[in-house]
Amino acid sequence: MKQNPIGVFDSGIGGLSVLRQLIRFMPYERYVYLGDTARVPYGNKSSETVIQYSEECTEFLLGKGVKLIVVACNTSSSVALEAVRKHAGEIPVIGMIIPAAAAALRSSSSGKIGVIGTRATIGSGAYNNAILELAGEASIKVYSQVCPLFVPLVEEGMTFHPAARLIAEEYLKEVKNKGIDTLVLGCTHYPLMSQLLMEIMPGISLIDTGEHASVTALRLLADNDWLADERHEFVIKPEIDFYITDLPSIFNELAGRFLGFAIDSPKRVSIGTH
Amino acid sequence: MKQNPIGVFDSGIGGLSVLRQLIRFMPYERYVYLGDTARVPYGNKSSETVIQYSEECTEFLLGKGVKLIVVACNTSSSVALEAVRKHAGEIPVIGMIIPAAAAALRSSSSGKIGVIGTRATIGSGAYNNAILELAGEASIKVYSQVCPLFVPLVEEGMTFHPAARLIAEEYLKEVKNKGIDTLVLGCTHYPLMSQLLMEIMPGISLIDTGEHASVTALRLLADNDWLADERHEFVIKPEIDFYITDLPSIFNELAGRFLGFAIDSPKRVSIGTH
Repeated sequence: MKQNPIGVFDSGIGGLSVLRQLIRFMPYERYVYLGDTARVPYGNKSSETVIQYSEECTEFLLGKGVKLIVVACNTSSSVALEAVRKHAGEIPVIGMIIPAAAAALRSSSSGKIGVIGTRATIGSGAYNNAILELAGEASIKVYSQVCPLFVPLVEEGMTFHPAARLIAEEYLKEVKNKGIDTLVLGCTHYPLMSQLLMEIMPGISLIDTGEHASVTALRLLADNDWLADERHEFVIKPEIDFYITDLPSIFNELAGRFLGFAIDSPKRVSIGTH
Repeated sequence: MKQNPIGVFDSGIGGLSVLRQLIRFMPYERYVYLGDTARVPYGNKSSETVIQYSEECTEFLLGKGVKLIVVACNTSSSVALEAVRKHAGEIPVIGMIIPAAAAALRSSSSGKIGVIGTRATIGSGAYNNAILELAGEASIKVYSQVCPLFVPLVEEGMTFHPAARLIAEEYLKEVKNKGIDTLVLGCTHYPLMSQLLMEIMPGISLIDTGEHASVTALRLLADNDWLADERHEFVIKPEIDFYITDLPSIFNELAGRFLGFAIDSPKRVSIGTH
């Protein structure tokens, strides 16, 4: 298994912010990334549809011989993780929710935690349930908020636009008033809004779901002795196969923003019955 | 053919603003509406993908025995109309572009026309080409602008939010500076922003694509003697079969906003190979 790639899927290009974290913690691995750009976004769609799409993404990655599947999409992680696990059989699956929930509990001293995400993620209650379950007897309060405009604002590169600030201030008003000290960024796009969020809520601890999922992935692979061997050659660019289901005109620009470096020729594929 | 329904498709629920106009001009018709909510939006996707999806929508409507297909989606109308026409064979197809282009030319006295739309619609140049072709020798200038955040702002019901005004002012700054007197609302969502747009550009003539496509549809059916007979009973609610490929949680709220009345039980269907 050591030399097999790690599979990562997302509804689109946002999951590249998760891939970036995976590479940070595991630079010697090979990666297969699938972005379902033909059907993006998942965040406003029904659970039934998100489950179907997530199973189809899983099927594709399994066909690539991956040793681990990282569900980079928070919406998929919220509503489809069980379905993905069932589908993946022996291959382990890591979602965004549990690692971030645990990190939020470690980070919060007030016991008041905020969670922001898409309509589907927040509507599922996945973060609330995970945080409260992990907290056990501890007295923890979770406040959640849907932020549907954050994704288009990030994709349009308008995170520092005055309109983004107005919208963010409105979205966060309630959770801020509750006195949270920790905020889970429950969507792959939100780490790109970190600076604005910190300006609006000075002193807040932001939880990047990709970061904590990556640490979980590192531990899991290490425990199984499945980590790829260190490579002697200096790794200038990690080894990644990019697959997307549609190639939109602004793909390269967006991908660079999320990943931090340019992508060489993504391959367009059809997945599932689509 | 008289008694056969009119088929209308859109990437999602925005096309209900077009259906509303069709009903206004042809209240005695039966309608079949298909919203591809499982793969919405089309506006940021590649032509290749939009063509495939549009053909699949067409196939579905043909299966319902429609006498006319109205491509309510401006993105589909811009990049996939020829493919839809080919697919529809004998059944006539009306898109959004030509009727609105002609209306814009009739409306403009300065000869300076603005067009706003999604990235795919504007990128295709369909409106520019249609307006300039219809204008013939006349000296006409067309200025276009992508407005990607308008769709999420409308869907979130934030058209009167101060952030919407900031964004709209920025998007429209250039076309306004060009001295346009007419603006084509090249996306089904934009009629819901009319008031804001008129405040930003006092005196502007707004072209609602659904309205002009509906007049074209009325003429086409009348010319063929395919208009449904007037019905003696008082039509409280028009006869519409609603099909959607996904039922998102906020469907009813959104549909009401676009259509102006509530939808009775939309049916969820799978289309194409999806």
